[in-house]
Amino acid sequence: MSEDKQKSEVKQAQIVTYLEQQQATKFRENFLLLHVYEQAQILTELTIRQRARLYRYLTPEELGATFNAVEEEPEAVIKYFDEMTPNYAAAVLGQMYTDNAVDILAFAEKKKLVQYLRLMPTEKSAEIKEMLHYEDKTAGAIMATEFVQIVSNQTVRSGMHVLKKEAKEAEMVYYAYVVDDEEKLIGVVTLRQLLISDDDALIKDVMNDQVKAVKVDEDQEDVAKTIRDYNFLAIPVTDYDDKLIGIITVDDIIDVIDEESAEDYSGLAGVDIEDSPEDPIKAASKRLPWLITLLFLGMSTATLISHYEQLVSEASILAVFISSITGTAGNAGTQSLAVAVRRLAYKGDDNKTLLRTIITEVITGVVIGLVTGLTIFVIVGLWKHNFILGFVIGLAMMCAIIVANLAGSIIPMAMDKLGFDPAVASGPFISTLSDLTSVLIYFNIASIFLSFITGK
Amino acid sequence: MSEDKQKSEVKQAQIVTYLEQQQATKFRENFLLLHVYEQAQILTELTIRQRARLYRYLTPEELGATFNAVEEEPEAVIKYFDEMTPNYAAAVLGQMYTDNAVDILAFAEKKKLVQYLRLMPTEKSAEIKEMLHYEDKTAGAIMATEFVQIVSNQTVRSGMHVLKKEAKEAEMVYYAYVVDDEEKLIGVVTLRQLLISDDDALIKDVMNDQVKAVKVDEDQEDVAKTIRDYNFLAIPVTDYDDKLIGIITVDDIIDVIDEESAEDYSGLAGVDIEDSPEDPIKAASKRLPWLITLLFLGMSTATLISHYEQLVSEASILAVFISSITGTAGNAGTQSLAVAVRRLAYKGDDNKTLLRTIITEVITGVVIGLVTGLTIFVIVGLWKHNFILGFVIGLAMMCAIIVANLAGSIIPMAMDKLGFDPAVASGPFISTLSDLTSVLIYFNIASIFLSFITGK
Repeated sequence: MSEDKQKSEVKQAQIVTYLEQQQATKFRENFLLLHVYEQAQILTELTIRQRARLYRYLTPEELGATFNAVEEEPEAVIKYFDEMTPNYAAAVLGQMYTDNAVDILAFAEKKKLVQYLRLMPTEKSAEIKEMLHYEDKTAGAIMATEFVQIVSNQTVRSGMHVLKKEAKEAEMVYYAYVVDDEEKLIGVVTLRQLLISDDDALIKDVMNDQVKAVKVDEDQEDVAKTIRDYNFLAIPVTDYDDKLIGIITVDDIIDVIDEESAEDYSGLAGVDIEDSPEDPIKAASKRLPWLITLLFLGMSTATLISHYEQLVSEASILAVFISSITGTAGNAGTQSLAVAVRRLAYKGDDNKTLLRTIITEVITGVVIGLVTGLTIFVIVGLWKHNFILGFVIGLAMMCAIIVANLAGSIIPMAMDKLGFDPAVASGPFISTLSDLTSVLIYFNIASIFLSFITGK
Repeated sequence: MSEDKQKSEVKQAQIVTYLEQQQATKFRENFLLLHVYEQAQILTELTIRQRARLYRYLTPEELGATFNAVEEEPEAVIKYFDEMTPNYAAAVLGQMYTDNAVDILAFAEKKKLVQYLRLMPTEKSAEIKEMLHYEDKTAGAIMATEFVQIVSNQTVRSGMHVLKKEAKEAEMVYYAYVVDDEEKLIGVVTLRQLLISDDDALIKDVMNDQVKAVKVDEDQEDVAKTIRDYNFLAIPVTDYDDKLIGIITVDDIIDVIDEESAEDYSGLAGVDIEDSPEDPIKAASKRLPWLITLLFLGMSTATLISHYEQLVSEASILAVFISSITGTAGNAGTQSLAVAVRRLAYKGDDNKTLLRTIITEVITGVVIGLVTGLTIFVIVGLWKHNFILGFVIGLAMMCAIIVANLAGSIIPMAMDKLGFDPAVASGPFISTLSDLTSVLIYFNIASIFLSFITGK
């Protein structure tokens, strides 16, 4: 694999050299032989001057195919189009799959967008305009409009004929969707099924009428779940009259799964890992708002401890265990949070599931609290020869863990119910919040037993 | 969607009733109309008595298709086979896709495994035996051996003929792989390409000879990356003589992506979210080992603070800020860890990338430390009217953050270099470790400035 990689890097360097030396024919010959993913890699590594030449050497259709495979963020990709003449840019966008073109155009300046749409074929620009209206992260926003559509009283032979004709344009030719007179979706037939069916059979006799579809405004995460569960290569998208308006292919769904898992992961760490710049100043400025916010939340913990400063000065031994208690409760709360967020995403958010998750987490917290509390009771008791101190630390740790588990499970669920993304309730947030409650619990319990601890 | 779901639940309940009432024909009629994913859902919800009846009503071929779609863990699935007669069990396993059968058989008792293999057709059992040797989480372990193979001097027509013949058995009929006389992989042709090519053209003239393949022992995460980058529906697997021995399809890759992202997420939270039991006792016993380990690590922090108890009793104000400093450094370290682990997974682990990531994280830590340190300096200075105290806290926080960022980036990379999964260096571990270093830094700085803080 690594040898493979080296070879392909040498090849790519050679192709860039052809471009550099203005050898148009040699460049085209070699560049067009590459997989579009590799073409896209080259494109994104060129200098602006080299790209200008690339735009001259490739037809809009060829460059459109390359841009379909570019994986940079759309706000970065639109900049390439700004480098082209408006005519060429519109032609390239017009050759791309509609969903990809729409992603990019969503970040175009208003003026440029109008210009590009005006320069495109009417049909294409109408499709794009329509799709620009769909809300981000819904089926409509990620669907492609290039699909194969047939009718139920065609023969298999004529269905195959349609497939062949559309094979060049459609994003997915292995499923043909069957519609009625009103363009309502009524079935699906796979190319595999067509292959093994008699040529003269009617589509309606070989199609699967139990076709699964998603509505245009369905959340992309739910679409991903359906494709994953059913192992589909694509799923049709319908509007509110059940009319077929697009398809979502499995490769787009892989991107969705990546995006959503990166979001969950980012949430847990309190940092956007998908968009973490390599420039330290920029990276720091992205992470600081969250850290400073938590610092202020942390200051309430400091204020609280400050309130008990008299207590600490009377029994400075209490300070020794602050970090053990806050740390352990924070760790338990983070575990609880991770499980709750994941269960929300995979098991749905009906009230029964929510309640069961909270109850499970609290009982888990009680068990964990008991075991951890007992452990620290024994350790502190033996270490400091003071089992009353051990009892105070153990009891405080147990209560702090139960509260942390409760917070770790309730907060993401409450956020979900209030319409926020539960993953925003990050690990750092839960552990900082749990610091506060842990300290409160700890000092209150300690106050009660103060005279026993100090032995005065 | 939710209405859809209700309807399908009613339908599934009806089908179970047919089973319950021993209406074999009605049951078969309705059950077999369902998508295999829905069949699998029903199967896993039946009672043992109902399942016994199911085994009688379905042919091994039908039940094999259902089992292909069961998503439970293989160690749970093997139990179903223990309920069947050995003959029937072997027949069902023989009808499943080899990769799925192998997954399950890996958890069979030795004696049963031998029995099942003996009862299967020789060819199938030989394939399964071969695949049982591949290491977990490699291409070999997740590949299917049912693929379409053609030769380069066939015509398109005869290639289509092969495809049609294999359409019932093969896991993926949309790609046909081209091999030479020695079964070495030399090209790939998609069904789309075959459709639009002239029937009399030779395969070698229409095939793509730049075929991407993976080696049988390649890590499943790398396979997933290739399929995702190239938007393939499947990728061929070759052995060390470049012979084609299997394919990996995109639906298996989606499972891999889910599994790997769940692992990363679990690592960050220090809890296995994929396998978190709903029974609180079991859940607690899974989480406790990690928490207790960290508690002991946390005790070193307590020991350290204990060492400075004299200092705290002289300046109890110091205790007030312990949790602010450990908390903020822990949060920064967690962010750093998340970014480093992700960059390792996506950008590779060559030394250049590693070094660059560490340098970036440390500089980011310096910037974050400066800003956060300044903030707390001002807050503490104003709040406690003691800017020297503010300076001590600010300086300690800055140093603690830099060390936490260094640990957050170096530890996962060191684990990767040593051959461990970097995701094991969990968030809780980094923040507990950072508690220790933060306290050490804090009290050392505080000792130096002690006389200024207390004003004595």
